[in-house]
Amino acid sequence: MTSPAPTTSPAHPGVEGSRPDRTLLDAVTFEHVRAAAKRIAGMARRTPAMTCRAIDERTGARALLKCENLQRVGAFKFRGAANALAARRETLQKTGVLAYSSGNHAQAVALAAALLRIPAVIVMPTNAPAVKLAATRGYLAQAPAGSEVVRYDPKTTKREELGARIAAERGMEVVPPYDHPDVIAGQGTAALELFEHAGELDALYVCVGGGGLLSGCATVARALAPECEVIGVEPALADDATRSKADGVLRTVDNPPTIADGARTPYLGRFTFPIVMERVDRMRTVTEQQLAEAAVFAMQRAKLVVEPTGALALAGLLADAAERPERVRGRRVGVLISGGNLDLEMLPTLLELARGA
Amino acid sequence: MTSPAPTTSPAHPGVEGSRPDRTLLDAVTFEHVRAAAKRIAGMARRTPAMTCRAIDERTGARALLKCENLQRVGAFKFRGAANALAARRETLQKTGVLAYSSGNHAQAVALAAALLRIPAVIVMPTNAPAVKLAATRGYLAQAPAGSEVVRYDPKTTKREELGARIAAERGMEVVPPYDHPDVIAGQGTAALELFEHAGELDALYVCVGGGGLLSGCATVARALAPECEVIGVEPALADDATRSKADGVLRTVDNPPTIADGARTPYLGRFTFPIVMERVDRMRTVTEQQLAEAAVFAMQRAKLVVEPTGALALAGLLADAAERPERVRGRRVGVLISGGNLDLEMLPTLLELARGA
Repeated sequence: MTSPAPTTSPAHPGVEGSRPDRTLLDAVTFEHVRAAAKRIAGMARRTPAMTCRAIDERTGARALLKCENLQRVGAFKFRGAANALAARRETLQKTGVLAYSSGNHAQAVALAAALLRIPAVIVMPTNAPAVKLAATRGYLAQAPAGSEVVRYDPKTTKREELGARIAAERGMEVVPPYDHPDVIAGQGTAALELFEHAGELDALYVCVGGGGLLSGCATVARALAPECEVIGVEPALADDATRSKADGVLRTVDNPPTIADGARTPYLGRFTFPIVMERVDRMRTVTEQQLAEAAVFAMQRAKLVVEPTGALALAGLLADAAERPERVRGRRVGVLISGGNLDLEMLPTLLELARGA
Repeated sequence: MTSPAPTTSPAHPGVEGSRPDRTLLDAVTFEHVRAAAKRIAGMARRTPAMTCRAIDERTGARALLKCENLQRVGAFKFRGAANALAARRETLQKTGVLAYSSGNHAQAVALAAALLRIPAVIVMPTNAPAVKLAATRGYLAQAPAGSEVVRYDPKTTKREELGARIAAERGMEVVPPYDHPDVIAGQGTAALELFEHAGELDALYVCVGGGGLLSGCATVARALAPECEVIGVEPALADDATRSKADGVLRTVDNPPTIADGARTPYLGRFTFPIVMERVDRMRTVTEQQLAEAAVFAMQRAKLVVEPTGALALAGLLADAAERPERVRGRRVGVLISGGNLDLEMLPTLLELARGA
């Protein structure tokens, strides 16, 4: 915030050096998250919050893992998609929705569309894993007529352009994966449930890609637990949000080679950037090895299947405990386990990386 | 029950052809399970009961997974150990307890002893996995003085003899892994929680090794849901309980080469055999491939780390759905996921076995 920032604000999204637009802060408040929680009750799962003795022994903290890997479609993304679609259900039932994503957001929108009887088009690359394609098609089979997966060759086609063209042609609304107030408010319901379960927390660790989950959770923490330290965790290879927070202006990355595919997002969004500036206490990064080690630890000791991105928050806690134990010891700490869509064939690679091989 | 059975009852345990001793049925009633639930409240976790859309789509049932892989020490075994130790805490604090096991029971007794301030000796083979040895030692480090792991060479020493000798020398009580009323009643609390959560269930699938979990769960089902079909599931390679149930007299196996190490138990116990005869509706077996496939399915789709034994009940449901879909379709089905202590290095082998390679 004290770093040299341009005096004029270049147009966001995505322009390096843009300043956060604080006028957008009111678009996501605690009341929006509460409304989202009511809206998605019965659609999204109330996921368990688990203790894990092995984590407590290693960190000295009392950790609660919020298990969004056990959420529908295997990731917190379902909360945001369900809220965004449910909030404008009647309109969207007429227009339909479109999402482009090779990851969890596509499946989240497809399932929410099926449940809410909203026609949906999901744009997926031809090289998307067969299992994700099959799952998405499975959801859309139960959505209204006109719903389909449209595939594109990522070598010759830009998904944004294809998505925008189809949406314009068919009059459909695009549901963005993170930079939308309803999506952010939906993600925040994960933290709302965690605070309702835990009562008080001294700290809350959350992963960061585009910042949707972190923004929603930080908004809840500021309202319910002003003293709770909110920490965003990124791969060191994809540290755009960490640098953005430090510099007070937008920093970007370009297709970083982290195993945390959910954190390869190039920059914070128009809505998430100001929230990260205002409501998050600090950011930290972890190495690829720390991340792999945390994912393996979660599987071996907490018995939870987590994808690499899903272990970012735990990796941040473990790294803090190793580097500055006094910062963690004796504290009640919330840890957002964000997703579990791990390709099991990848596990040997993850084990090797965790060992430092 | 109508099969040719000897008219005199040879001494159990372990004698092929022994008849079930029905006078022992009163040793484990629903009231015992209720008392166990009160006793272990606050010690054992109330594990989540999860739905999984992928399982419902594949089976046509509405399945609830009772996640005992998320129980303390990673398996339902903690319930029985905690109840057996808590039921006689004051005496055991003076005498101490002894358990021999290379599996989850050892860790369960060690942790329960630490929590209840009971001295404990755990007899483990020298070839036990390092991670299990370390975990058991970690628990015992917090148990009273005199607690220790005693290791033995399985090539030269029988654990039963060594265990009995140490117990006699030190005046300690042996806590058996399944054939004990307090252990069985403790395991039954898993089903009690599941019925409390689910209300009604049409069927309940439970894995079988020595029959402790199945006996406890069947006792609860008979009291709370007389119409609920209780199904025990075994590996075809270790089908002693299935044959015992069919023949009405004890059948045994000798160190069967199934990947479900928790089901290698050679025979049902004195207490569990009559309960399996009286309170279980049917038994079924699954192949090693079906078992591996179920374990992989649970990890990929339900995001739960399960050990092979832990996936037996799910494998039984999937096999029933494939063979006799009308038996499963539309039913509310409970599935006991019994444990999650999978050696992650074993996963590639499991994936291969699941593919039929």
